[in-house]
Amino acid sequence: MVVPSLLEPLLHGTPMARRRAMAKAITLLESTRADHRAQGDALLTELLAHTGRALRLGISGVPGVGKSTFIEALGLYLIAQGLKVAVLAIDPSSTVSGGSILGDKTRMEQLASQEHAYIRPSPSSGTLGGVAEKTREAILVCEAAGYDVVIVETVGVGQSETAAHGMTDMFCVLQLPNAGDDLQAIKKGVMELADLVVVNKADIDPRAAIRTRTQITSSLRIMAMQGNPKHAQNDPQRWHPKVVTISALKGEGVQDFWAAVSEYRRLQSANGELAARRERQALAWMWERIDAGLRSAFRQHPAVRQLLPQLQADVVAGRIAASTAARNLLAAQAGQAPQAIR
Amino acid sequence: MVVPSLLEPLLHGTPMARRRAMAKAITLLESTRADHRAQGDALLTELLAHTGRALRLGISGVPGVGKSTFIEALGLYLIAQGLKVAVLAIDPSSTVSGGSILGDKTRMEQLASQEHAYIRPSPSSGTLGGVAEKTREAILVCEAAGYDVVIVETVGVGQSETAAHGMTDMFCVLQLPNAGDDLQAIKKGVMELADLVVVNKADIDPRAAIRTRTQITSSLRIMAMQGNPKHAQNDPQRWHPKVVTISALKGEGVQDFWAAVSEYRRLQSANGELAARRERQALAWMWERIDAGLRSAFRQHPAVRQLLPQLQADVVAGRIAASTAARNLLAAQAGQAPQAIR
Repeated sequence: MVVPSLLEPLLHGTPMARRRAMAKAITLLESTRADHRAQGDALLTELLAHTGRALRLGISGVPGVGKSTFIEALGLYLIAQGLKVAVLAIDPSSTVSGGSILGDKTRMEQLASQEHAYIRPSPSSGTLGGVAEKTREAILVCEAAGYDVVIVETVGVGQSETAAHGMTDMFCVLQLPNAGDDLQAIKKGVMELADLVVVNKADIDPRAAIRTRTQITSSLRIMAMQGNPKHAQNDPQRWHPKVVTISALKGEGVQDFWAAVSEYRRLQSANGELAARRERQALAWMWERIDAGLRSAFRQHPAVRQLLPQLQADVVAGRIAASTAARNLLAAQAGQAPQAIR
Repeated sequence: MVVPSLLEPLLHGTPMARRRAMAKAITLLESTRADHRAQGDALLTELLAHTGRALRLGISGVPGVGKSTFIEALGLYLIAQGLKVAVLAIDPSSTVSGGSILGDKTRMEQLASQEHAYIRPSPSSGTLGGVAEKTREAILVCEAAGYDVVIVETVGVGQSETAAHGMTDMFCVLQLPNAGDDLQAIKKGVMELADLVVVNKADIDPRAAIRTRTQITSSLRIMAMQGNPKHAQNDPQRWHPKVVTISALKGEGVQDFWAAVSEYRRLQSANGELAARRERQALAWMWERIDAGLRSAFRQHPAVRQLLPQLQADVVAGRIAASTAARNLLAAQAGQAPQAIR
């Protein structure tokens, strides 16, 4: 059994032993072998009682916005406060290229050398759903190992931001101080996900940074007026999304950022929203994995495999309605005779 | 057999007989009874050879933007050109309230009284996926009955716009001439779906209308620069999303609107994009219905029904990882013993 040999150092080991056990546990959870998966599930179930105490922090932003520099500055700041910091990643490009935003060894060099930091690159295979699941499970490993802050980093591309939002307590979006970038984030609905917007590189053009901050603040206010519950105003018991300006390169603003995060955590813990968010996330995660499993079993069913190519061709050619084809395939999987379709 | 009795008047009847047969056919397709469903599938398969020649036009916009007035003006204009016009609707609120954006009998009175117009309210029960399926099938009925333009109307709320975009050849978004509304559309990703943006009520404040048009045009250009393939510039063989200003109430701009639609259809037919879009839509529709069917069968499986409440409670309480619960439920449905989870 691999599980007890991992559990002991993970929960009670020296910092070094913990990090080694974490790496092994996450590798086990990333494995697609059935026996590893069963061991992984057993390990997760053991770990669960020791999870849930960390702050799960999502940090997103387009390439070039300065995520690595910011996360390194933040990580070093938090370690100086006596906290332990883990950095995980969701990188959709890594599923295609095998590369990863965190694969580059030169990134976050200073943070990586800290005893109380753990940095793990994005799982580099499978669908986004699969990558997201592995990252969710890795969060639990980090928490059980006693890490206080688990940062989930993601690039501002595709659905990875929704995935990162769906597994963190607080979702922060890094922005450059220019309007085009602002519009891009609004367009993609990222702004709607943001609990905190961070305007980075404020040192380069302080006036543009202030203008961007004003623009985003007004966007957030319009969203609030338009009834997004996250932005409901005039309730001092609730967190209202904010904008902070920083210069990660100069190390300026990290303290302000952390003050905002701490205020968020205090308010949302007191009003119960943090616990409610985690419950929603856990159930959504369960159903997402169920849907993925159902789809996978469906595609592998012999009767479906036999019928699918012809039915897909018929649908594309307009010889059968898509809904009729779907019903016939579902009936075939269920072992029923396909409906008479002449 | 109900099918031949519907097929004959639908394909060859007088305008009045066709409309009566269309109403009956769509009601049959909306039924959830298994025997009706089998008849409906048989009917659809018969109709398919007669479908595909209409232009499927999606029209979206928030309440108050003037959709009904615009669609009525457009419908009357098209009928005056000798075309037949059908108006369907996807209204998510109707699934909750049983009411419908098109349920109000006083809407589009003039258009409704035309011999060559057919107006059908939104299916008023089921999930959005179910409502969308019924609307897709109703499009096929309208096409088989010889309608030249099928308009799918939807309110600018939730996922109904994505559904309408997924079943039409061209998706138009109505906007009011003010910046807040513009921002709202950008935020929700609707702008990204739009093939044509229509600024309505241009008569009320012509300067605001021009300002809005400029803003949206610049938004579309930024999207183009940021690599959305729909907005790829500098290719005269491709359609590029445009903005037109109209005053539906005064009947101004409908001709410009239709000129843009015709140009869209000409370009996208010639470059093959229209056919490719329909193929993508049909396959996506098939998989959406398969996923819905799989989820429904899963929820009804006896072993799942027995295990689900406890496992959901365990997931919410953090006693079991969501991914482990998902795997156990999938194994239960497959008739396998649940994995040992201690």
